[in-house]
Amino acid sequence: MRGFKSTVRVDEAILRFFSAIIFEKPVVESVPTLEALDRILGEDVISHVDVPPFYKSAVDGYGVHAEDTFGASRTSPSTLTLIGEIDAGDRPDLEVERGEAAKIATGAAMPKGADAAVMLEYTKTISPRRIEIWTSVTPGENVTRKGEDVHKGEIVLKKGVRIRPQDVGILVMLGKAVVNVVKKPRVSVFSTGDELVEREEEAEEGKTIDVNRPILLSMIREAGAIGLDRGIVKDRFEDIRRKIEESLAEADAAVVTGGTSVGARDLVPEVVNSIGRPGMLVHGVSMRPGMPTGLGVVNGKPVISLPGNPVAAMIAFEVFVKPLISRLTGAQEELPPKIKGRLTRRIASVQGFRTFNRVLVRRLGDQVSVEPIRLTGSGILTSMTKANGILVIPEDVEGYEAGEEVEVSLLRPVEEG
Amino acid sequence: MRGFKSTVRVDEAILRFFSAIIFEKPVVESVPTLEALDRILGEDVISHVDVPPFYKSAVDGYGVHAEDTFGASRTSPSTLTLIGEIDAGDRPDLEVERGEAAKIATGAAMPKGADAAVMLEYTKTISPRRIEIWTSVTPGENVTRKGEDVHKGEIVLKKGVRIRPQDVGILVMLGKAVVNVVKKPRVSVFSTGDELVEREEEAEEGKTIDVNRPILLSMIREAGAIGLDRGIVKDRFEDIRRKIEESLAEADAAVVTGGTSVGARDLVPEVVNSIGRPGMLVHGVSMRPGMPTGLGVVNGKPVISLPGNPVAAMIAFEVFVKPLISRLTGAQEELPPKIKGRLTRRIASVQGFRTFNRVLVRRLGDQVSVEPIRLTGSGILTSMTKANGILVIPEDVEGYEAGEEVEVSLLRPVEEG
Repeated sequence: MRGFKSTVRVDEAILRFFSAIIFEKPVVESVPTLEALDRILGEDVISHVDVPPFYKSAVDGYGVHAEDTFGASRTSPSTLTLIGEIDAGDRPDLEVERGEAAKIATGAAMPKGADAAVMLEYTKTISPRRIEIWTSVTPGENVTRKGEDVHKGEIVLKKGVRIRPQDVGILVMLGKAVVNVVKKPRVSVFSTGDELVEREEEAEEGKTIDVNRPILLSMIREAGAIGLDRGIVKDRFEDIRRKIEESLAEADAAVVTGGTSVGARDLVPEVVNSIGRPGMLVHGVSMRPGMPTGLGVVNGKPVISLPGNPVAAMIAFEVFVKPLISRLTGAQEELPPKIKGRLTRRIASVQGFRTFNRVLVRRLGDQVSVEPIRLTGSGILTSMTKANGILVIPEDVEGYEAGEEVEVSLLRPVEEG
Repeated sequence: MRGFKSTVRVDEAILRFFSAIIFEKPVVESVPTLEALDRILGEDVISHVDVPPFYKSAVDGYGVHAEDTFGASRTSPSTLTLIGEIDAGDRPDLEVERGEAAKIATGAAMPKGADAAVMLEYTKTISPRRIEIWTSVTPGENVTRKGEDVHKGEIVLKKGVRIRPQDVGILVMLGKAVVNVVKKPRVSVFSTGDELVEREEEAEEGKTIDVNRPILLSMIREAGAIGLDRGIVKDRFEDIRRKIEESLAEADAAVVTGGTSVGARDLVPEVVNSIGRPGMLVHGVSMRPGMPTGLGVVNGKPVISLPGNPVAAMIAFEVFVKPLISRLTGAQEELPPKIKGRLTRRIASVQGFRTFNRVLVRRLGDQVSVEPIRLTGSGILTSMTKANGILVIPEDVEGYEAGEEVEVSLLRPVEEG
């Protein structure tokens, strides 16, 4: 293909690349629990307490000895002596003997001696000191057991999970005001290309505003890492070399974008090879778009050379950089949501290449349709804003027919109606 | 049901609630484009330029008159005069006449006169001034047209979209250094309950650490709003009333949690009715968990009373508060990703109630299994960390059989293997 002597299949490229990287144990840092949302948990969280820490009532009603209610019904009630009341938050200082009951609120600690709660609806107050019970309860009924939610010593949350709102709740519940989370990896990004400028003001004829860097910095942030913006460099060997060396010194990974077409100025592989071993491992991947992707490792640290075409850069980022960031944090990789639908028209692929097709997914009633977006060029960035999904066609599939059911990874919500 | 004279179906509850709220036009604010990721776009973005702003080559090769290549092949090449070279970033000052060619790099502006590009691979240099062309190209071939990605005056991004990395790229491409986004709505949260304490240190016997507030504040943040933490108040009419009034003065919506079981102390509906019209519209929803949810509106502003049970509070948040936040920002609501799988065992529901069942979704090869999580109580918060999905059973369905295919909303990634 176009200047690449040979391209490497995606799976093989991932294997070569990942196996040459030296993954250090993720570094952890302590943050307040209330700010830990979306961070990656850096430790197993083990409970030092039972939750709830005491037996409590799950209903508004009466704490009783279950045996005192056996056989009770509306026509043949049990009559019990009311000895007091426990509100949610009260210390449970009452003790219920056989033949006695204590009024209790939902969430209140059960009185001593009581082993079940009867709901208010199945009782009747017949005097300030006497109540009737109209139903029988079994021991433990309507009672939340001590340690029912979490028992002491249990691993409640495992290292590597992304902290969700319910996990923040669990951490607070366990009395953890701070929590160890994985330090965000740092990924340095720069662009190469004599034609690139930062801003419209500089964009005289022939120049192109560099859009890849802002896109990639946003994707890095979304993937849970810190993007270091290192600007644009000219297509000069020494400039690129200095920038990659600086990047590897300050960051856990370096991403270079632009300058990866195999033309006179594709200097990145040569530069990477000049810096250290093993150097550039893959240059040219059997994928479309994204073929000019380069993957290198220098002294254990990854250098990813993404295509200059922004769509290709985004797709190669998803395939190579996002899983890299997950590996750096020790997190379970979160795949994009998927949906099945029927193709509105035929879509072709190149044998031996994995193709990533931008599609528009619509739901109409029970039917989900998948419409390939018509393109005149793969550099069309707006296709990534018009599309809400990516349809991947594997290497050994030549394409799909109109009407065929396919599975799509969603970029945005499905269009309804 | 337990103290609720009647409950209202979910759809009816949403209708009553949303139709009483006065939705103001969302307020916009200007932020730097590079910080706009995940914000809701507050304006239609219209391009004031063509992108790309000039015709450019999509390949490394030669800019030519297409007509000069007609009929060319390896055995019968066209020979053209090389008049110069245009690199990416160069001003296109060359003009190609019939019989001439200019060398061009990918992304370089096309020379004047040239209407197609021939890839380097299909050419041969025969002298410093002469090249051979081995293939024919059609007018426009290998050329990215001016305005091909975006034409001047086109609406490129619509108001209300959540800004994704590719949108950041588009905004930069259009020269927008700042962008108008919707100001995040403010949602005030407080808890009521004499049994609630903030921290473990205060949690003497009978007390419960308030986990709902941290969970709800995290969910509010995740939904794109600002949560205002207003602490815990005692179950006293005047205290709750003051807190709701303060909340409605400072925020776009007030969320109260705890204190919603229908016991002696369920004061919130009465308080809301005492503050203004129309007051509490729904108290008791036909859903499980989440039945004790209350929905009120005071002078056009929403007040949501969520159950004290944290699982019920989370589910009622998803059903009522998340769509409310979307409406406040004018954004398209983003539904959680869904997946289909087969139930590992029967799951029952209550006729007339919408039930939300916590499930564990696993993928093994092509098979997706959905296992309902066994619970001893609906208050079990850890069930929300063990579950990775919610299976909703509609009101008119009594349950699903083992082996039946069901659709699950995902809370976390599917477990693999």
